[in-house]
Amino acid sequence: MSPTLASNSLKLAQDLPLDSGQALSGVEVAYETYGELAADKSNAILICHALTGDQYVASDHPITGKLGWWERVVGPGKVIDTDRYHVICANVIGSCMGSTGPASLASDGKPYGMRFPVITIRDMVRGLVGLLDGLGIERLHTVIGGSMGGMQALSLAANWPERAERVLVIASTARHSAQNIAFHEVGRQAIMADPNWREGEYYGADSSPDNGLAVARMAAHITYLSEEGLTEKFGRRLQDRDAKSFGFDADFQVESYLRYQGSGFTQRFDANSYLYITRAMDYFDLAEEHGGKLADAFAGHVMGKGARFCLISFDSDWLYPTAESRHIVHALNAAGAPVSFVELSAPFGHDSFLLDVPALDRVMKGFIDG
Amino acid sequence: MSPTLASNSLKLAQDLPLDSGQALSGVEVAYETYGELAADKSNAILICHALTGDQYVASDHPITGKLGWWERVVGPGKVIDTDRYHVICANVIGSCMGSTGPASLASDGKPYGMRFPVITIRDMVRGLVGLLDGLGIERLHTVIGGSMGGMQALSLAANWPERAERVLVIASTARHSAQNIAFHEVGRQAIMADPNWREGEYYGADSSPDNGLAVARMAAHITYLSEEGLTEKFGRRLQDRDAKSFGFDADFQVESYLRYQGSGFTQRFDANSYLYITRAMDYFDLAEEHGGKLADAFAGHVMGKGARFCLISFDSDWLYPTAESRHIVHALNAAGAPVSFVELSAPFGHDSFLLDVPALDRVMKGFIDG
Repeated sequence: MSPTLASNSLKLAQDLPLDSGQALSGVEVAYETYGELAADKSNAILICHALTGDQYVASDHPITGKLGWWERVVGPGKVIDTDRYHVICANVIGSCMGSTGPASLASDGKPYGMRFPVITIRDMVRGLVGLLDGLGIERLHTVIGGSMGGMQALSLAANWPERAERVLVIASTARHSAQNIAFHEVGRQAIMADPNWREGEYYGADSSPDNGLAVARMAAHITYLSEEGLTEKFGRRLQDRDAKSFGFDADFQVESYLRYQGSGFTQRFDANSYLYITRAMDYFDLAEEHGGKLADAFAGHVMGKGARFCLISFDSDWLYPTAESRHIVHALNAAGAPVSFVELSAPFGHDSFLLDVPALDRVMKGFIDG
Repeated sequence: MSPTLASNSLKLAQDLPLDSGQALSGVEVAYETYGELAADKSNAILICHALTGDQYVASDHPITGKLGWWERVVGPGKVIDTDRYHVICANVIGSCMGSTGPASLASDGKPYGMRFPVITIRDMVRGLVGLLDGLGIERLHTVIGGSMGGMQALSLAANWPERAERVLVIASTARHSAQNIAFHEVGRQAIMADPNWREGEYYGADSSPDNGLAVARMAAHITYLSEEGLTEKFGRRLQDRDAKSFGFDADFQVESYLRYQGSGFTQRFDANSYLYITRAMDYFDLAEEHGGKLADAFAGHVMGKGARFCLISFDSDWLYPTAESRHIVHALNAAGAPVSFVELSAPFGHDSFLLDVPALDRVMKGFIDG
């Protein structure tokens, strides 16, 4: 993980209290920034990343060398214009790209492993708020997130209503459904079934639970794509052959693609982080945190005070379908918070928020610049 | 696997030719029957089982002791009335309940393991036709199947059009989609990643790839249920506790249920069989077998000759959605074959064909008795 040292990192001045009742001390938050911060600090945009994302939103990934995960959107003259805005993106705690997580050293000098406390989305946001405090940014111009990033944006709005002027939530949800939890549980079981997982104590060993992590990634990856998108992209086409092999090689392109996604993922991600972050997502239920009524989560945002909200969903997203966004919009309406909402048509399923959807760019730019 | 010896078993007189070009010799087909065969042999109904099903359609399972998998439907006075019909249900080749499969002994006296040839749905049906030949049944009153059983019913109708008078296909498809293949590939990778799989040579060893098989089952099981059904059945309810554990136990009921489904499955199913049967399903493309045009698969069924068809789909089935059944119906229409089709409303997803759906019973009974 040494390449991540290239990232900026802030050590939080105070212990981080957690929803579990525990606390984390010596928390590091690794982050990247793009564009200049205005003298009055009014132009800061926080981008919250998804489950397997990281702070390299618009710079090359230090391990894979690939472009930043939202390079299409973030940069000079782009939708999130770094000539105008100071963009901040931080690795969430629990992850593995420089922020404190299960691979970090505990006070005894050994990696936490499964001794790392179970965290929540709100705990991740506590870490982000700690970073903003450290950077002296009191109020964000905008907080933005897709998928798990959207959960963080919602959690920030609910728990720190004064910290953002605009809240942009894309392809997300206010709670994990039984089906969402089920898919994550399959992934966790795949990791824990891998003998190289060793109850999480594989750091420094000559093997890690790559096979289990790859299976977890493969299962999850299917949920990020639509059935139509998979059919369009792969259908039943064969991979580099004219006829079925009558064996167990990757005959079909979709098999080859999934295997590639699985094995590539293990090179840049830590299996224990996958356990902790999926757990945080499954625990996420914004209404439950606020007495069981989602509208009460947004009580700090009555019209004219607090933030403006924009929700975006995709019609082909079956992981967090439009109904989940609509549920949030209704709660915001009930709370009297200003909100706009659009369901976009895109064939790519949940992953649409990462892909080239011109209507998404227009809605985002209109909301951020407006 | 000794309990399966209680089943009837027929040794096919001739080698079974396979789509791969190979052949299987000494094939055993294990089967169960219910009700008397009429003197003119006109009342035989063949029920084809799904991926993890078996011949115990209406009798206790010899390993689990549970009721037959379609006991609700098959029996005296029931929808498929064994006072009137002679019901036959056979374990498909490739499976593990008595019919020849990867756990069977090859000619060298050792289990096939991965030396078992890759089979297709049509090969399974070749085995079933061999059984019917052995039993002296030339023409079935009805062939019935749900899910993979429906694929077999379709394959029988396409390739042996004279062998059935009625073809009843429930919650099925004429080809596996990219998404269908993707989910199966996750399952196969989970099994093959289990070190106890040992390239399939685990028979007689002190461990088998149960962990991998359980993960495969868990992933597949999610696809058998609807999102709505999961929410209704489990929602975000906790399992035997009042609060989240902030650990990795099965906090949520849906996690506990999935783990139970996964581990229970390993007690009655062979991991190699899971590999071979999922492969057969992924290879299934009835149109491709018939020159690329699905209607041509049904050329033996012009109006007045051949069989009558009935297709049933469920509105909450996202594994083989209604569009797949409609696609088959259009092909039957184009072929001039008599077909009725109904999409039923049921909340349970793909598994609806196994569950209590009164409208399903009415449609089935009307078609079979009519």
